[in-house]
Amino acid sequence: MSAAAVAAALRERQSFVLTSHARPDGDALGSQMALAFALRALGKQVRLIDRDPMPAPYRHLPGVSGIEYAPAVSGPADAVVTLECSDVKRAGLAGLENYFLINIDHHLGNEMYGHVNWFDAGAAACAEMVADVVDALGVPWTKEIATHLYLGIATDTGGFRHGPVSPRTFEICRRVAETGVDTSRPSRQIFDSFGIGRVKLTGRMLSNMELRHDSRLAVLEFDDALLAECGATVDDTEGLVNLPLGANEVTAVALFKSQADGTCRVSLRSKPGVDVRAVATRWGGGGHTNAAGCTIAAPLDTVKRNILPALEAAIDAATPQLAVNN
Amino acid sequence: MSAAAVAAALRERQSFVLTSHARPDGDALGSQMALAFALRALGKQVRLIDRDPMPAPYRHLPGVSGIEYAPAVSGPADAVVTLECSDVKRAGLAGLENYFLINIDHHLGNEMYGHVNWFDAGAAACAEMVADVVDALGVPWTKEIATHLYLGIATDTGGFRHGPVSPRTFEICRRVAETGVDTSRPSRQIFDSFGIGRVKLTGRMLSNMELRHDSRLAVLEFDDALLAECGATVDDTEGLVNLPLGANEVTAVALFKSQADGTCRVSLRSKPGVDVRAVATRWGGGGHTNAAGCTIAAPLDTVKRNILPALEAAIDAATPQLAVNN
Repeated sequence: MSAAAVAAALRERQSFVLTSHARPDGDALGSQMALAFALRALGKQVRLIDRDPMPAPYRHLPGVSGIEYAPAVSGPADAVVTLECSDVKRAGLAGLENYFLINIDHHLGNEMYGHVNWFDAGAAACAEMVADVVDALGVPWTKEIATHLYLGIATDTGGFRHGPVSPRTFEICRRVAETGVDTSRPSRQIFDSFGIGRVKLTGRMLSNMELRHDSRLAVLEFDDALLAECGATVDDTEGLVNLPLGANEVTAVALFKSQADGTCRVSLRSKPGVDVRAVATRWGGGGHTNAAGCTIAAPLDTVKRNILPALEAAIDAATPQLAVNN
Repeated sequence: MSAAAVAAALRERQSFVLTSHARPDGDALGSQMALAFALRALGKQVRLIDRDPMPAPYRHLPGVSGIEYAPAVSGPADAVVTLECSDVKRAGLAGLENYFLINIDHHLGNEMYGHVNWFDAGAAACAEMVADVVDALGVPWTKEIATHLYLGIATDTGGFRHGPVSPRTFEICRRVAETGVDTSRPSRQIFDSFGIGRVKLTGRMLSNMELRHDSRLAVLEFDDALLAECGATVDDTEGLVNLPLGANEVTAVALFKSQADGTCRVSLRSKPGVDVRAVATRWGGGGHTNAAGCTIAAPLDTVKRNILPALEAAIDAATPQLAVNN
């Protein structure tokens, strides 16, 4: 399957619903919106339906205000296009089984659940694949399309640091910049667009960081009281769990949030070789090998007493990752 | 002046000293090293002389171990190439007046102090200009050259967020990736490769952050005692000045370091519209409009009493930046 085959399936249909995964990120949004602008340029009817609202920094981007938020897809559509969904449940939407499904995704383990499936684990972002689809549809890149392609790539690669960033990735970015989009501006809006409360919270959480197991495990925590003190919201904690992972010593990070309902939310991150997904699944959670989480109905102390030794064991059991050439 | 003219001046000479500014950053290093590899590929003799050691995360990169650290340039050389130096004093090296000088730089206000000068404020990094020189010299891009060009661009743009990032910037990155360099790996080494002391220091500095002028001005400071307490080095402070600038409220940041010799080092950052270069130059420093610095021979309190009101005035005088159509 290829961009050309996806484009053919799109061309012969007239009305579409586009969707992406629940708790959407920049690539979920950018992929959907870029494809929506391209299909509309061809005179197609496009609805965007997502389960969860887009993160605040992206809401001002072109077209985003037109997204419908709903728990299910209904109404007529010749096809539903799922972007960034490795399995059909990832969208979190009821009713998808009633539609012709076109599945475009770059996540390893994609279940090929669609009637048309294009899966490319070599793409640094789903937006990279959408760029090829837009080209295969013969739609010129407008600033709106370019902005959303760049959003997907810049966020899914963490600013070109993660994933299979390739010549193709940068070639798309070159073409984005050629449209006259000031790429540094959306990047700043994406990465540098939060309240000062987040900066204060970052300071407080890192100051209180606990290091265990020869500094290989970093432990962060926050609660509503700390958020209030810093003038921050839960949105402001997004990504903070990754900060200690930049240190050479640290191979895993646990972030705990005591919640008002007596449960404790646990976010886990790790470097290649340390499997935190296995730890999260033991307590009913899930995720990826290096990014996982769970929610446990117990007080913080109890949760830490259980999770932290399990993480230390996961660190000890880590497979050494061979250095890649260069 | 152009890359071709610089290449002509380089081609007709045989022995070179390359240097960059004191307290080197990624672009200072990457620009020097990429040009060094290109000149050596042509059989030229190249020495690299810098006043200050390279930041730790870059020391493992190819060729860096061959740099000489010295307070002066001496010995025979047909020319000295200064990279990233807006005036000749920026290199911090004695003896430059005895040499034929080739000046390659992208800093606004370059004093054109060389015998050959190429200045391009439209380049996102000096390494962008060096890429053109390497091409004009007809030297194919090796992985070493590509790695250093990417280092310069990725660091000087703060991960493609700042400065005039253009189609040319991404085209160079595309060609870097074409050489087989895994750009995400050096990016991680550059940005996510520090000691845990940096994480602790980040926490402490942000916890102690002072907000002034309706949170439009953020003030950070550190000294040797805090570094020691955190197990951090001065290298670990690299880039921390940018963190508060991510907050919507903040339009300028000042970072102060009281030094053992009784002077105070001031780093300034700002959002578009606020000119911190003008503030730094009033106290004998320099830099870019949105990233500048100076060193003042006075105690911290005195320095703050002078600089902070000047910054508040610069914030008040800020030109509102019109939203760019996109």
